[in-house]
Amino acid sequence: MKATKSYDIWRINREVVNSEEDLVILEYPFTIFIDEEEIITLLCSPKSLEYLAIGFLYSEGFIDNYSAVDKVTIDEENGRAYVNLNERRSFNEKLQGKRTITSGCGKGTVFYNVLDSFKSKKIKNEVKINPSKIADLMRRFNQQSELFYSTGGVHACAICYDDDIIYFEEDIGRHNALDKVLGRALIEDVNLDEKIILTSGRISSEMLIKAAKRGVPVVVSRSAPTSLAIDMARQLNITLVGFVRGEKMNIYSSFPSLKF
Amino acid sequence: MKATKSYDIWRINREVVNSEEDLVILEYPFTIFIDEEEIITLLCSPKSLEYLAIGFLYSEGFIDNYSAVDKVTIDEENGRAYVNLNERRSFNEKLQGKRTITSGCGKGTVFYNVLDSFKSKKIKNEVKINPSKIADLMRRFNQQSELFYSTGGVHACAICYDDDIIYFEEDIGRHNALDKVLGRALIEDVNLDEKIILTSGRISSEMLIKAAKRGVPVVVSRSAPTSLAIDMARQLNITLVGFVRGEKMNIYSSFPSLKF
Repeated sequence: MKATKSYDIWRINREVVNSEEDLVILEYPFTIFIDEEEIITLLCSPKSLEYLAIGFLYSEGFIDNYSAVDKVTIDEENGRAYVNLNERRSFNEKLQGKRTITSGCGKGTVFYNVLDSFKSKKIKNEVKINPSKIADLMRRFNQQSELFYSTGGVHACAICYDDDIIYFEEDIGRHNALDKVLGRALIEDVNLDEKIILTSGRISSEMLIKAAKRGVPVVVSRSAPTSLAIDMARQLNITLVGFVRGEKMNIYSSFPSLKF
Repeated sequence: MKATKSYDIWRINREVVNSEEDLVILEYPFTIFIDEEEIITLLCSPKSLEYLAIGFLYSEGFIDNYSAVDKVTIDEENGRAYVNLNERRSFNEKLQGKRTITSGCGKGTVFYNVLDSFKSKKIKNEVKINPSKIADLMRRFNQQSELFYSTGGVHACAICYDDDIIYFEEDIGRHNALDKVLGRALIEDVNLDEKIILTSGRISSEMLIKAAKRGVPVVVSRSAPTSLAIDMARQLNITLVGFVRGEKMNIYSSFPSLKF
C-alpha cells in the first residue's frame, strides 16, 4: 500500500493562488488483535506492518520473545493484524475500552476512537483568510518560540484572533501545547468560533479533532497535515493551512474567502 | 519551574572534543487526579500546568465544560494536579491500570510506567564510537529518508552495525518507526548487543526505554534528547548522541571510547 495520498490543494505565494496536486502522508488506522482480543489501534504508515505489530507487542510487554508467536496475519485492506500466540493469555485487564494511540507528539487520544469524530458536527466557518496576515502571525509565532530556539526540543501552539496572538504555549508534546491553549480558553470562557489555531507541529487527525471539538474554524501549521486530518477537515468544514513559510502556504480544505 | 535543565555534555566537531554545559528540555511526569482517582500521567513541560490539566480533561471527554470543575490544585514539586468536580463521577471503567501517555511522536507507552524503567538492568556497553562513522551513517540515513523529502511528514529509524545500516523504516510516528526496526530484529532473531539505533526524531524517555529493553548500547538522533532520556541513559549505561549535523554531534551520556 502506498504511504502517501494525492490531494487537490491550493498553493499560495503572496497573492498568487494555484490549484495543484499535492502528495500527503497517509495516516492509516491499524488495529492489532491477539487471538480474538482487540489490543489497540495505532495510527501509522502502512508499510512493514508485521514488524510494527510484533515490535509494538514486544515494546508494550504483550510478548517476551518471538517464539511466543504462532502466526501473524496482516489484512492490509482493512488495517488489521491478527496475532496468534502459542499459549493463550487474556489481556482483558489491560484493555478496558478501545484504545487508539496516536502518531502524534504528545499524548494522543486513548479514550475515544478517532473514527467516531467523523460523526462530529460541521463547523460554522465564516472566517475570511488573509494570507498576508497568516504569514505575519506565523512570523511572530516563530519569534516567540524561545524554548525551541534554546533547546531544539519543543512545540508551540497559539490561539489567534484577527491580527493578535491571544494565547501562546510551549510543550515538549504538541498535543500538550494544544491542550494548554484550549484549556486556558476554557477556563477564561473564551469563545473559539472565529479563532485561528497556530501550531509548530504536524497536524494529525487528533490535533484536528481537538480543535473541532471546540468549534475552531481555522487550523494553521508550519508543517504538514496528514491524510486523515485533511479528510476530517473537509468533512467538518474546517480550513486547514499547512507549510506556512514566509509568504507561502498550502490550503488543504474548505477553501475560504481570501482577502489580500 | 524551569522548562530546561543543564547537563555537562561532550561536544564533538570533527576530532575536537569539548566538555561543555548544555541546556536540555525537561521531560516532566505530571499526574492528574480527579477527586481521589488517578487519571493519567502525562510527560510534558512544567509550565501552565492548570491549563494543561483542564485542556486534557476536556479533550479526552472527562469534563464537558469548566463549570463542572470545583477546584484545581497544582502540586508542582511532585508533578500532580488534583481536580475536584462539582459532581462526583467514577472513571474506573476508563482507567484500568496506570497510564502514562508520552510526549513523543507516535504511540507511547500506555501500559507500563516510565519510571519503572529505572529499575532496568544496566546495559553492557563496550561499543567504541567513531564520530566520523556516525556522521557518515547519519548522512546516508538522511539520504534514505524518501518519504520525508516527498511529504515532509515522517520519521525514520534505523539499526546499524559498524558501517552498515542493516534495517531502515519510516513511519508517521517515531515510536512506530522504532517499533518497526525492533520488530524486524526480533522476528529475524538479530542480537542487538553491539548495534546502534539511529532516529530522525527527538529522544524521549520512552524511545530510550524501548532501546534499553532490547539491550541496544548506542542511540543516536539528529535532534534533541529530553532530560529524562539523558538521566535514564546515564543510569543504564547507554551512549546517547544527539544533534548529529554534518561532522558535529553532542554526547549526552556514557561517554564512550572514541576512535577517530
